[in-house]
Order: sequence, then C-alpha cells, then structure tokens
Amino acid sequence: MSDPQKIRFGILGCAEIARKLSRAITLSPLATLYAIGSRSLQKATLFASSNNFPPSAKIYGSYEDVLNDPNVDAVYVPLPTSLHVKWAVLAAEKKKHVLLEKPVALNVGEFDVILDACEKNGVQLMDSTMWMHHPRATKMREFLSDAHKFGELKSMHTVFTFGADPDFLENDIRVKPDLDALGVLGDTGWYCVRSILWAADFSLPKSVIALPGTIFNKAGVIMSCGAALQWEDGKIATFHCSFLANLTMSITASGTKGSLHISDFVVPFEEKQASFSTATESGFTELVTGWAPVPSQHTVMTDLPQEALMVTEFSRLVKSIKNDGAVAEKKWPTLSRKTQYVLDAVKTSIDKGGESVILN
Amino acid sequence: MSDPQKIRFGILGCAEIARKLSRAITLSPLATLYAIGSRSLQKATLFASSNNFPPSAKIYGSYEDVLNDPNVDAVYVPLPTSLHVKWAVLAAEKKKHVLLEKPVALNVGEFDVILDACEKNGVQLMDSTMWMHHPRATKMREFLSDAHKFGELKSMHTVFTFGADPDFLENDIRVKPDLDALGVLGDTGWYCVRSILWAADFSLPKSVIALPGTIFNKAGVIMSCGAALQWEDGKIATFHCSFLANLTMSITASGTKGSLHISDFVVPFEEKQASFSTATESGFTELVTGWAPVPSQHTVMTDLPQEALMVTEFSRLVKSIKNDGAVAEKKWPTLSRKTQYVLDAVKTSIDKGGESVILN
Repeated sequence: MSDPQKIRFGILGCAEIARKLSRAITLSPLATLYAIGSRSLQKATLFASSNNFPPSAKIYGSYEDVLNDPNVDAVYVPLPTSLHVKWAVLAAEKKKHVLLEKPVALNVGEFDVILDACEKNGVQLMDSTMWMHHPRATKMREFLSDAHKFGELKSMHTVFTFGADPDFLENDIRVKPDLDALGVLGDTGWYCVRSILWAADFSLPKSVIALPGTIFNKAGVIMSCGAALQWEDGKIATFHCSFLANLTMSITASGTKGSLHISDFVVPFEEKQASFSTATESGFTELVTGWAPVPSQHTVMTDLPQEALMVTEFSRLVKSIKNDGAVAEKKWPTLSRKTQYVLDAVKTSIDKGGESVILN
Repeated sequence: MSDPQKIRFGILGCAEIARKLSRAITLSPLATLYAIGSRSLQKATLFASSNNFPPSAKIYGSYEDVLNDPNVDAVYVPLPTSLHVKWAVLAAEKKKHVLLEKPVALNVGEFDVILDACEKNGVQLMDSTMWMHHPRATKMREFLSDAHKFGELKSMHTVFTFGADPDFLENDIRVKPDLDALGVLGDTGWYCVRSILWAADFSLPKSVIALPGTIFNKAGVIMSCGAALQWEDGKIATFHCSFLANLTMSITASGTKGSLHISDFVVPFEEKQASFSTATESGFTELVTGWAPVPSQHTVMTDLPQEALMVTEFSRLVKSIKNDGAVAEKKWPTLSRKTQYVLDAVKTSIDKGGESVILN
C-alpha cells in the first residue's frame, strides 16, 4: 500500500507529457503514483510499467474508473484541450483535486465552468505551468519587484517557438481543430502570455492586438502568431509563438532601472541548475566603447526539477485541504483564468484581422 | 605634415559622438585627423586638444572652412539630423567623401538629395552604423546564411532602449523637434531596423505597422515606440526602441533550423572581444527535462574597435577612388536608404495611429 501521507495521483490518459509528470510525482516527497486510466487497458498497463508506477498501482481501462476510485486524491489531466471541461468537471464532482494541463480550456467561458465545479466541490485547481515553480522564477520575480534594481516594467518581449517535425504537423493533437483548436497559441503561446502577466505582476493589459503574419494550417489551426499588449500605465509587451522555427524560449524585459534576460524560461537547459541575466543602471564606458557595468549572470540550483516542485506545491495544498480542512488556494486558478482571458483576446484579435481588443 | 597615404578627415562640429569617432580615426591605419570645424573656434580648439588631434591639425571656426580646405579628403558629419541634407550636400559638392551619422536624414526624400549629390560628385557615402563593421557581425551573418545551421529566417525581435537622464530628456538634440524630429526612432530605432534588414538579407518587408504604446514628449518627439514588419515570404520581425528604459540591446532571431541571440549588438560589452549565442536543431532530452543540444556561445576577438574598422573600411573605399580612380561603392548608401525607408514607414504608421503601411 502506498504511503498514506502522500497525495495519491490518478492520471487520465497516456499522453507523452504524462511521462514527465509521472516521474515528477515519483520524485515529489508529497505525492505518489496511484492510478492510470486510458480508454485502452493495454496502453494503460504499458504506460504504468514503463513509467515506474509501483506494483500496487491501479490500472484502469477508462477515465471514469480513475475518478470512481475512492483512494484517488487528485488527478492529472493531460487530455486534449477540448476534453478539459468534461473531465475536469467530472473529477471535481468526484471530489478529486485537479492538476490541469495548459491551455486550461478552449476559452474563459469553458474555464469558468471548470472553476465553478472546483469551487463548489472544494477541490484545488492548478494548471501545469511548471516553470513558475522553479526557484529561478522566485529569484527573477525578486529582481523584477526590486524598485532599485529593476524599477518599473516598461517593455517586454517573449518568444517560444519550436520546430515541429512533419509527423507532429500532421498528427499531433495540437494541430487538430477538434482537439486543440488554439494550436500554437494555446501551447507555446500560453507560456509567453503567462510570462508576460507574471512580469506585469498579473495586472491585465488594457488592450491586445494580434501581430500581422498569423500562419494557419489547412484545418485553420494556428501554427504561428504573435501579439502586442498594452497596459494603462503605458508598459507594453510583445510575444511570438510558433511551431515553425527552431526551439527558442526567451524573455527580454526592460524596466526603468534594470533589465532581465533568460533564454530557457519554460524548460531550463539543465535540470539541476538554471541561469538568468540581469543588469541595473547599465551605462557605457567613457567614449561608449563598452558597457559599465556589464550585465551579471545568476545561477540557481535545484535538487528537484521544476515539475516535481510543482507537484509538491499542488500536493501541499491538497494535503492542507484533506488533512487540515483548509480551503482551496485561489491564487493558482486566478492565474490560469487571467492567462486564458488574454489568450482569448489574442484569438479574437486574430479572428478580426488584427483589430485591437479592449479588455475590461 | 600628416601621412599622405592616409585619408585626411575633417569633422563637422563637436558632438559627443565625434570624440569616439576621433579616436577611431586615430586608431585606423588608413585615416588621420586633419581638421575640426565648429561655429565656435574656441570649442573647436578645445575639442582638438582634448581628443588627440595632431599639432598640425587645422582648427576652423565654421563648417564651411573645413569644406573649403583642399587637403580634407573626407568629412564626418555628426550634426543634428535636420542639418544633414545641407551639410552633406555641400560636402559632396566640395568633393569631400561623407561619413554620415544616423539617422541619415529626416526622411528618404531628403536622403535622396544627399545621395544624388554624392553620386554626381563621385564621392563615397557611408552611414556610421559601427556594429556592422565588427568581425562578430560577419560571423553572425555567416551563421544566418547557413542553410543547415540556421535555415530560413522566420521571426526576429530586436530591442534597443536606454534610460536617458533628466538632462538628456530636456536638452539633448534627440528630443528636439527642430533638430532630430524622429527622436528615439531615428536614434536607437535606426539600429533595430538596420539589424532586422541585415538579418533579412536586406530584403524589404511588404508591410509595417507601428505597435500600440508610442510615447511622445511634450514637443511631440517620439520617446518610445515599436513596430511589426512582415515580409512576402511570411517572416516577421518586431522591434522596440525607447529612451525610457534601462540599457537593453538585443537580437533574438529564429530560423527553420537554428536560433541566434545577442545582448549587446550595437556596442559590445567589451572592446576587444564580443560574443553571440547560436543553436541548431535544438531539441529536448528524453522526457523534456533539459535541452539537447544546448545553445553554444561564440566569442570573436578584434584588435581594432568596430568604429575604427568602420573608419578603415570607409577610408579604403575613399583611397580606391582617390588613388585608383574607382567608383564609389553603392552598397553602403543602399543600406542607408533601405533603413531610412523602413523608418519612414514606421513613422507614417505611428502618425496614422497604427495603420498598416504597405511598402513597394
């Protein structure tokens, strides 16, 4: 029998990303792999055996069976986005806490249905944006919040592209209108928007415009796009996301006093350590022949990879609810909703040929 | 008497940037400081003595006197942009070769007057975009041109901001509508646009839109702005330039096969060496817990700073004309004109509230 002190996870489906999360659950001191469900019992069995599930793990031939298992505390939902609302709501109704892959839904309206179900049933909801849980994110946030070192955020650009192979572009769920209709915007674009909101301390922009050059596949799903966001206080941000260019994953942010750059914000180059670059009150040498001071590099170590830290934070919240009668932490679903809200605005602007979309 | 093998430079005015160029001329094996002219003879005298002009250097109390000196081969023109057309044309008519500060003019119409005068008088024209002459630019260009290492350019973002102090924001020529009406767009924006065109192999975009959030000073001069550029083949680029945020100077470019990043493209952190980062066919480790391969860092050494290399290249062209009867090299003024042309389109889009401007 698994450790009763650990949060028992059930996983819905055998998505590739669920392999990374299974390892994260195994690595987390607060979580344990308890069940896997797939529409194919054979696939579930193979998944469990090749992803270090304990021999005691339950293997189910349907997602419902996972939700019906009274010993499952929480579920990880890596299903196609179009299925999120159905399965996240069902999970909440079965009193399962929900760790939900991004994008959390196809639009805010759908997400609000999930949110409502989780609130009514007192379960924790968190999206699976792993980089937020890396200690590097905390260090960078400290820098961005420092009035002397960074000052006020003025502009930011973020990029997340990767070069999808022909098989991906033909068959992946993220290119299918009935499965992940937001395409790259919901995938790598999610991370771009999240990082922008994070740097803006989660204040919402007043307006969003899609940039020219959106590329769709034959089925009308977005393969490459970008947007510009503008805040009431004058700060601006741009992002670009694409399945059609080599892996690039960067943030460049400029404040009144400082700058920040990072080249691997979503997945650090290495698992145990991650870096970022900062500069404060940068200037030039006499005659502008060099910089003084030059930017400095910061490296942050971590024993556990960011996805295991995410599972640990989620499990900690679930344990508080389960053991101490705490209420669900609203912070995480609030961030999910804001991210989805801005994604929706970008999508609307794309649909309207780059018209400015005003956010309330 | 100065070395007759060297190109004899006259400098028009005592701008701060002329100090850097004076040193560059001194460092260049092909050039020599020959004359300085200012409306104030006293300022010219002080400038010459504090910038290592040789004792034989001519000190003039007007720009005309420099142009009338038959021994001056070439002039460096760091005057406010609004004066470029007058003095560059006069210089050309006096058969002086022209090294012209950026932005080359207030608009392409004005620049064409300069270009015409230079062509008619057979003198070399080059703008003072120093970073193009650093050997790092050559190495980066090789990478961008490599079909296997970088592939086809898909997207690019470039930023050049610096935090101007209150004195600059009140008094610098770049905030004055009658002197440098393009403001930051003509200043740091020039470098952004040039770098984008450079990466695009100097093909012109089909359309340009200004991004929301342009900031003007009270006199209506641009203090912060950005734009999105789109090419016929689908590639896109964005840039942001500002006087209102900490010094940031980066290029992030993504191609079908590779990526490039640089954080100090206009002025390298150090004078004698400069770096950039590249990645080719980037991917992830098993389970997406890190990158494989990770990007690589490249360092390029240079004996002479980039501004001295620029002076040397300009002088080499001038010597060919002067000594060997060569015709002026069209490459450099062509690049100037394209850069100015795109700047004009950005300015037009700003003036039209972000409307798309179609380029021919």
